[in-house]
Amino acid sequence: MTVRFGLLGAGRIGKVHAKAVTSNPKARLVAVADAFAQAADDLAGQYGAEVRSIEAIETAADIDAVVICTPTDTHADLIERFVRAGKAVFCEKPIDLDVERVKSCLKIVDAEGGTLMVGFNRRFDPHFQAVRQAIDEGQIGDVEMVTIVSRDPGAPPVDYIKRSGGIFRDMTIHDFDMARFLLGEEIETVSAQASVLVDKAIGDAGDYDSVSVMLATASGKHATISNSRRATYGYDQRIEVHGSKGAVAAENQRPVSIEIANGSGYTRPPLHDFFMTRYTEAYAREISSFIDFVESKSPASPSGVDGLVALALADAALKSVKEGRAVKVSEITGPLADRSVFQGR
Amino acid sequence: MTVRFGLLGAGRIGKVHAKAVTSNPKARLVAVADAFAQAADDLAGQYGAEVRSIEAIETAADIDAVVICTPTDTHADLIERFVRAGKAVFCEKPIDLDVERVKSCLKIVDAEGGTLMVGFNRRFDPHFQAVRQAIDEGQIGDVEMVTIVSRDPGAPPVDYIKRSGGIFRDMTIHDFDMARFLLGEEIETVSAQASVLVDKAIGDAGDYDSVSVMLATASGKHATISNSRRATYGYDQRIEVHGSKGAVAAENQRPVSIEIANGSGYTRPPLHDFFMTRYTEAYAREISSFIDFVESKSPASPSGVDGLVALALADAALKSVKEGRAVKVSEITGPLADRSVFQGR
Amino acid sequence: MTVRFGLLGAGRIGKVHAKAVTSNPKARLVAVADAFAQAADDLAGQYGAEVRSIEAIETAADIDAVVICTPTDTHADLIERFVRAGKAVFCEKPIDLDVERVKSCLKIVDAEGGTLMVGFNRRFDPHFQAVRQAIDEGQIGDVEMVTIVSRDPGAPPVDYIKRSGGIFRDMTIHDFDMARFLLGEEIETVSAQASVLVDKAIGDAGDYDSVSVMLATASGKHATISNSRRATYGYDQRIEVHGSKGAVAAENQRPVSIEIANGSGYTRPPLHDFFMTRYTEAYAREISSFIDFVESKSPASPSGVDGLVALALADAALKSVKEGRAVKVSEITGPLADRSVFQGR
Amino acid sequence: MTVRFGLLGAGRIGKVHAKAVTSNPKARLVAVADAFAQAADDLAGQYGAEVRSIEAIETAADIDAVVICTPTDTHADLIERFVRAGKAVFCEKPIDLDVERVKSCLKIVDAEGGTLMVGFNRRFDPHFQAVRQAIDEGQIGDVEMVTIVSRDPGAPPVDYIKRSGGIFRDMTIHDFDMARFLLGEEIETVSAQASVLVDKAIGDAGDYDSVSVMLATASGKHATISNSRRATYGYDQRIEVHGSKGAVAAENQRPVSIEIANGSGYTRPPLHDFFMTRYTEAYAREISSFIDFVESKSPASPSGVDGLVALALADAALKSVKEGRAVKVSEITGPLADRSVFQGR
Repeated sequence: MTVRFGLLGAGRIGKVHAKAVTSNPKARLVAVADAFAQAADDLAGQYGAEVRSIEAIETAADIDAVVICTPTDTHADLIERFVRAGKAVFCEKPIDLDVERVKSCLKIVDAEGGTLMVGFNRRFDPHFQAVRQAIDEGQIGDVEMVTIVSRDPGAPPVDYIKRSGGIFRDMTIHDFDMARFLLGEEIETVSAQASVLVDKAIGDAGDYDSVSVMLATASGKHATISNSRRATYGYDQRIEVHGSKGAVAAENQRPVSIEIANGSGYTRPPLHDFFMTRYTEAYAREISSFIDFVESKSPASPSGVDGLVALALADAALKSVKEGRAVKVSEITGPLADRSVFQGR
Repeated sequence: MTVRFGLLGAGRIGKVHAKAVTSNPKARLVAVADAFAQAADDLAGQYGAEVRSIEAIETAADIDAVVICTPTDTHADLIERFVRAGKAVFCEKPIDLDVERVKSCLKIVDAEGGTLMVGFNRRFDPHFQAVRQAIDEGQIGDVEMVTIVSRDPGAPPVDYIKRSGGIFRDMTIHDFDMARFLLGEEIETVSAQASVLVDKAIGDAGDYDSVSVMLATASGKHATISNSRRATYGYDQRIEVHGSKGAVAAENQRPVSIEIANGSGYTRPPLHDFFMTRYTEAYAREISSFIDFVESKSPASPSGVDGLVALALADAALKSVKEGRAVKVSEITGPLADRSVFQGR
Repeated sequence: MTVRFGLLGAGRIGKVHAKAVTSNPKARLVAVADAFAQAADDLAGQYGAEVRSIEAIETAADIDAVVICTPTDTHADLIERFVRAGKAVFCEKPIDLDVERVKSCLKIVDAEGGTLMVGFNRRFDPHFQAVRQAIDEGQIGDVEMVTIVSRDPGAPPVDYIKRSGGIFRDMTIHDFDMARFLLGEEIETVSAQASVLVDKAIGDAGDYDSVSVMLATASGKHATISNSRRATYGYDQRIEVHGSKGAVAAENQRPVSIEIANGSGYTRPPLHDFFMTRYTEAYAREISSFIDFVESKSPASPSGVDGLVALALADAALKSVKEGRAVKVSEITGPLADRSVFQGR
Repeated sequence: MTVRFGLLGAGRIGKVHAKAVTSNPKARLVAVADAFAQAADDLAGQYGAEVRSIEAIETAADIDAVVICTPTDTHADLIERFVRAGKAVFCEKPIDLDVERVKSCLKIVDAEGGTLMVGFNRRFDPHFQAVRQAIDEGQIGDVEMVTIVSRDPGAPPVDYIKRSGGIFRDMTIHDFDMARFLLGEEIETVSAQASVLVDKAIGDAGDYDSVSVMLATASGKHATISNSRRATYGYDQRIEVHGSKGAVAAENQRPVSIEIANGSGYTRPPLHDFFMTRYTEAYAREISSFIDFVESKSPASPSGVDGLVALALADAALKSVKEGRAVKVSEITGPLADRSVFQGR
C-alpha cells in the first residue's frame, strides 16, 4: 500500500515533511497547498507533486492523509475539516494555544473516529528512542528522575516570540512531552521559575528566555527541565533518566566528530546549530510511524491527547511562575479520561 | 611557619583530616581527642601525635588550630570555646542544625575576632575549582544557570538518617553551597519537591531520599539540584554552568579509566564509590587553604556565614516541600548583613 | 546541468551507488546493466531507470557517465571502453590487481583525455575530511605521524578472500590511500608484518587476517596501519595525525549514542556493524564530487594514479612480509611522473 | 615488618622514590647517599633520614633494601655490590646500556640468590594494571594486537640525549616492556623506522626523535609502538589491546577534567605535562610491590631478565633501522633460558 499525501503549508517545516514523505518508499506526495502560490509551486515542483487548494485536497479521492504545517491558529479548524473528510491527519504541534479549543477539537476527532497524530518529533529521534527502549527493557529498573537540558542555539525573532504563545508553549512543550514519554506515569504538579537573561526584548514582549521546571507524578517520580533560548555551542539537547537499577542518557549530537589537541587542550567541534539537521532522522521516522498508523488503522501516537496534556503542562508552568507555587495539572485540564502516552509501550 | 593542630574527634571524617594535616609540610598534628580512648589512641599512634583531653587542647600553648570532627550537636559549643581560647577553628559542616543557634554562635566568633572555617570540602575539589576559575576568567560570560546532579552511591543507615537533620541539611547542603559558590550572587527563592523512592524506611523515619530543587537569585539566575540517596553506578557528582558566552562542566571521576569493547558495546568502570576516595584531593587542599588563612590571619572561606546560609537554604527547601510554594531565604534568616561567599573571588 | 548515469553492476556496491546517484539533485540514473537480468531489473525498477546492455550504454547518447561496480577483473577493460566512448568513468577500487595492467589502462585513459575517478570512498567521509581540513588549515602544524586503526566487524567468506587479491590489496588498500591523503608527501618505503589470528581458513587460502604496516616518506614522516578482519565491537575506523603543533583524530562512529550506567559501569552501544551504514554519507559525497568533476571538466580525484599507487603500496607490503625487510615503493612501480593525490589540496 | 631503606642518588627520580618510600606504612627511609652532599642533606632532612656514604649503607645492619637512582653507568656495579651485601635491590632502568654487561650482572645476582627489581614503573599504573587485569580475566579473549602511543611533552636537553643510549634505550624501552607485559608471549622480531622531525639538534647528536616499531611473537601476535619526543598537548600515554573477543584501552590522563563549550566547540584541558604527575600513583604502587617481594622473599617482577629483554628489544630496533630489515631478538641476546615477565600472571 502507498499512502497518498496532501501537504498543507509549504513553509520551513512543510519542506521538512515534504522531504520525509518523498523519501519514504511507502508514501507519495500528491498535492501541496499554500496561501503563497510561489511557495506551493516551488515545493510541488521539486517533488513532482501538484498544487491544489485546501478545498480540492479536502475532497480529493486520491489523497489518503494530510500533513498540516500551516500557522498555529488554523490547526484546529483544519484538523476538524480533514477528519470529517475522512483523511488521516498529521498535525504539527500545537493543536491550538488554548486548552479549551484543543478539547473541543479532540471531541470532534473522537466523534468522527478520525486518525490524528501530533508532531512531537523528538519521540522519534533514534537516540531518545534508544533511551526509552533501555527503560522498557528494564535496564535501569524503575524510573525515578528524568533530567532534560534543552537549549536553542539562538532566540527566534521577537515577532515570532509574540505569536508563539510564550516559551513554555513554544519551546518547553517538547520537553514536557519528552518528560511524559520517559516518566511512564502522568505528571500531577508543575513548579517553574522563569527569567529574562538572554535578550531584554524578549522580556519586553512579555515572554521569558530562561526557565527551569520541576515536575512530579503521583507516585513521586521527578522530572526537571532547563531551557535557554541561547547556547553559543549549538543545539543542546540532552536527556537522562535515573532509575532504581541504573541510569541512561542520550548524548548531544554534532555533525563532525573529530578532536584537535594542542597546547590549549582537546577541542571537539560545536553541536548541530539547527533543529532540522539535529532531528533529520527523527522527522523521517515520525512520518514513517504515521504511515504505519494509517496503514494499520491503529490509534496514532503521539495522539491529540498527548498534544493537549503537553499544552496543559505549559499553562501550568506559566501559572506556577505567576503565582509562585506548585500548580496541579488538573487545575488546567480538569479530569481527563484518556491520557494516551502509554499506548505506545 | 608550622601550624600546630589539635584534632577533636577521631572518627571517619577525623581520620580524613588527620591524614590531610600530617601530609601537609606546613602543619603538624600535635594532639588528638576523642570520647572513645581507643579511637584517639589509634589515630594519635599512627601519626606520632599525643592523646589529650579537649580541655587540655583548649589551654595548650603548643596548639594553634583545631579541627572539629565531633558529633554535630557539639559543634557550636566547641567553636565558641576554642575561639575564646584563641585557637583558629576549622569545623566540619554543619555548625548546628538550628539556624538560631548558628547565628548566636557566629556572633561570638565575630565578637572574639576569631578565625572560623566551615568544611565545605567540595569547593576545594580541583575540578570544581577549575569550573569556578573558568567563570572568573570570563570564559563563559555571565553566569545564567547552574545545574547540579549529586547522587550518593547508597543511603546511609536509617539511624544516621534520623540524626542527620534530613536530606536537605545533610546532603543537599553541599549542593546549596556549591550553587552559591558558582552563581556569584545570593539566592533569593527556593522551590523544592521531595519523595521517597529508594527506601521506604527513610520515609518512615520522616525523611526523603529523592529531591529536586530550583533556586533563583534577585537578577533571575537559576540553579537546579537533583539528589538521590542511591546511584548504582557510583558517586555521581556533576556540576555545569551555562553562561552568556558558553558553558563549563565538571565530569564525573572514576578511579580507573579504561574502556572495554565487545559485542555488547563499550564499557567504562563505575565511578568512585565513596566520598573519601572521590574527594581525597579536595580534603588535602581544604586543610592547605585553612593553613593559609591561619598564617595570613585573613578571614577564612567558606566562613561561618557560608555555613549559616547553606543551612537556611536547606530549611527553605523543606518549607517549600511542606507548603508547595517558592520560599524566600529571608523568611528563614531574616536580613543578613554579611554573606561572605564572594570574598574568595 | 544534470549528469546522466549508467550503472554497470547491480550488486551490493552497485546498490550503494544507485542510491547516491538518485538522491543527488544534479544526477539522473538512466540505465542499469548487470549479467544477472533479475538484479538489473530490480534495481532499475526501484529507481525508474531502464535496463540496458553494457554495449547499449557504451553507445548511448543519453548517458554522460558510468559507475563501474562489476567484478574487479573487468574493471580495466571497462574503463578503457567507456573512456574511449567518451563517458566520464567512476570505477570502484581496485582498477586491477596487477600493477602493470593498471599502468597500461591509465595510459589509455591519459591518451583519450578521459575522466577517471577511483572509488576511495573514505576520503569523502565528513569526519576524515574534517581531519584533512584541520591539517590544511595549519591547526596541527607539519604532519609528522599518521596512525590508522582499521578493523572489519567480521571476515568475508573464504571464497571472497580467494578472489580478493589478499588483505593488503582488498582491505589495507583503503588505509594506504588514507595515509597518502593525510601525509601530504609520497610514501617511499613500506614495512609490514602479517599473520593469521582470526580464522585458520584464511591462512589456508593463502591470505592473512591481521596485519601491521609502517610507512615512511622521503622527509621521514611516518604512518602506521593496524588491520584485523574481525572486531567484535563493530566497524573500527580511526585515524589520527600527530603534527608539530598538535594532533587531530577522527573518532569512531556509532548508530546510537546513548550511555547506560549501572553497577557494572558505563556502557555505550557498539559501533556500526557494516561499511554501508558507516560510510553512507561518504558515498553520497563521493558521487557528488564526481558530478562536480564531470561538470567542471577538471581532473578527478582520487585519480587513476591514486589507484595505482595504493595498489603498489599493497604489493610492497606483501613483498615486505615475504622478505622480512623494508621495501621501496619504486621497486614496485618504477618511477612515476604523476602522483595526483596532492591536486585536491 | 618494616622494610628499612637506603636510597642511592638524591636527584629527580631519587626524590620520587623517597616520597613513595616515606608514604608507605610498611617502609622506613633510613639513609640517603649522594655524591653531592647538599642533595643528600636536603632529601634526608626532609624525611628525617640520615646521610651516609654508599659504603656505610652497604655494611649497615639497619638497612634491608636499597633503591638505586644513581647515573646509569653505575647501576650494574651497585647491583652487584648490594646483592653481595645481602640487600634487596630496586634499581631504576636500565641496568646498563650494554647487553653483555647486563648479562654478567644478572649472573651474579643469580649466583647470590639476590632480590632484584627493575624500575618499569608503568606496569604499576592503575589504568594499565586494569588493562592487564581485563586480559587476565579473559574479557577480550586471546590477545592479538597491542597498540601503544607514547609521546613526551617535550624533548630532554641534548646533553641528556647524548648520554641516554638513544631514544630506543631511553624512551621506547618503557613501551617495549609494556608490550611484553600485555602480549603474554615473548617477542621474536622487531622492525623499526626512525627519523628526526622534532629537533635537528637531536639528529646532530646521532639520535632520533620520532620512531615507529612493529613487534611480532612466535604465534603471530603483533604490537606497534609510536613515539615522539614532543606532544604539544601533554604527556600522551595510551595503550590498547585487541583480542579475539573484544578490546581494552587505557585512556589518557589529565590533571583536571572539565569541559568548556562555546562557539569554537568543546574544550578539555591538556594532559599531564610531566611523567611524575602522570605516574604518581604508579611509583607508589611500584615501591609497595617491591616491599611485598622483600617481605615474602619471592622473586621480584619486573626482574633483571625483564630489564635485559627490554634492552635487547631496543638494540634490535636500532639494528632494524640501520639495516632496513626485521631483526630477531635472539640476534641480540642469544638464547635466554628465563624470561620472567610471565611470572606475575
